[in-house]
Amino acid sequence: MKKGTLYLIPSLLGESPTEAVFPSANREIISKVKYFIIEEIRTARRFLKKVCPEIDIDSLTFTLYNEHSSSIDISSFLDPLLKGEDAGIISEAGTPCVADPGSLVVRLAHESGIRVVPLVGPSSILLALMASGFNGQQFMFHGYLPIDKPARARRLREIEQEILKKDQTQIFIETPYRNLQLLQAITEACQESTLLCLATSLTTPEESIITLTIKEWKKKKPDINKKPTVFLLYR
Amino acid sequence: MKKGTLYLIPSLLGESPTEAVFPSANREIISKVKYFIIEEIRTARRFLKKVCPEIDIDSLTFTLYNEHSSSIDISSFLDPLLKGEDAGIISEAGTPCVADPGSLVVRLAHESGIRVVPLVGPSSILLALMASGFNGQQFMFHGYLPIDKPARARRLREIEQEILKKDQTQIFIETPYRNLQLLQAITEACQESTLLCLATSLTTPEESIITLTIKEWKKKKPDINKKPTVFLLYR
Repeated sequence: MKKGTLYLIPSLLGESPTEAVFPSANREIISKVKYFIIEEIRTARRFLKKVCPEIDIDSLTFTLYNEHSSSIDISSFLDPLLKGEDAGIISEAGTPCVADPGSLVVRLAHESGIRVVPLVGPSSILLALMASGFNGQQFMFHGYLPIDKPARARRLREIEQEILKKDQTQIFIETPYRNLQLLQAITEACQESTLLCLATSLTTPEESIITLTIKEWKKKKPDINKKPTVFLLYR
Repeated sequence: MKKGTLYLIPSLLGESPTEAVFPSANREIISKVKYFIIEEIRTARRFLKKVCPEIDIDSLTFTLYNEHSSSIDISSFLDPLLKGEDAGIISEAGTPCVADPGSLVVRLAHESGIRVVPLVGPSSILLALMASGFNGQQFMFHGYLPIDKPARARRLREIEQEILKKDQTQIFIETPYRNLQLLQAITEACQESTLLCLATSLTTPEESIITLTIKEWKKKKPDINKKPTVFLLYR
């Protein structure tokens, strides 16, 4: 039997107009898919209603996945695909399988010979890297740093060393309500000449992308509290 | 005087329909910009004609930049922006300032207090990472590996070690006519159990994304010669 296709469907990063962040072809694909693998039902429904206002939500099947899903759960997500139905993974924000746990679903799809099609959409990490002015020819994404203060300071110093050793841009993120604590930790751990880019609320009317030295950031109190922010370090 | 905005304008990765890879808002922004910073005039003209068929190419100013541009050349690119005109950077393929030398222009823009706005579009690196099934929560992009055979083999073994040490997906690219040589080098240098994803001709009708072990790739001869391909390693 012909298998279905697994679409990787980017979602919004915030209150952006859809025509600014999605190719129109995404809408046509979404409107044909009946099975969705999602992180949170409320966000997924709101997203689908916004992109395809005419969608009949009650005709769709949603399966929840998150960092607690076991690989047995996940392999059952693939049943509709094995029976020839298309399915889509939707992330909480941005592109699925980048800075979220979705990649395990894709991995099992490859093992089952299911075609995987990634759709174009907004990725805060990629947009931040483009707009930082930092090296885009070599870079490293670390995800979240440790929350424990001494461990975080140690990690930041290691990360700063990587810039010098490998000439790589260093990228990481934080839960938005801890952004100011992370900024404080960076200004304490890193050298004054190191460059920090803060890319905040990307693709929304509040978008802000600022690159300054650590010395300059020490004098600022940027408006990043509770706002999704990507942190980038370079020299 | 109010400064202009520097837009980072993604271009096509190949023969893709524009509605599949660009938000419609990109077209409106492009149609208002008169100054473009580009890598190659022929590609840039063709791209602009495809996205905005009604565009008057002769009314536009193009400035070439590439890895040979000095920072003095580049700072003159910013003159129109300082005079209040908007400008755009267009990459040869995909998103500007990622895997290309454009970031120096953006860096100087930040230093001059010019607003930088990244637009959404196709990035082969990001699409490949999403669709690989590999870890998207930690990853490293290396750009091009050395061409010299012993240096390349050494580098590949180092890269493979990073997967084990840091649990990071490792991503790199090659000039398309050398893709098969690089694949050969990978299968010789890496362990049989390591996973390799080849993501080829992304967003085009020929798109192919295949994840297999090195042992399995040894028996295959994939159709990647002269086709843009992203290489990803993980375990």
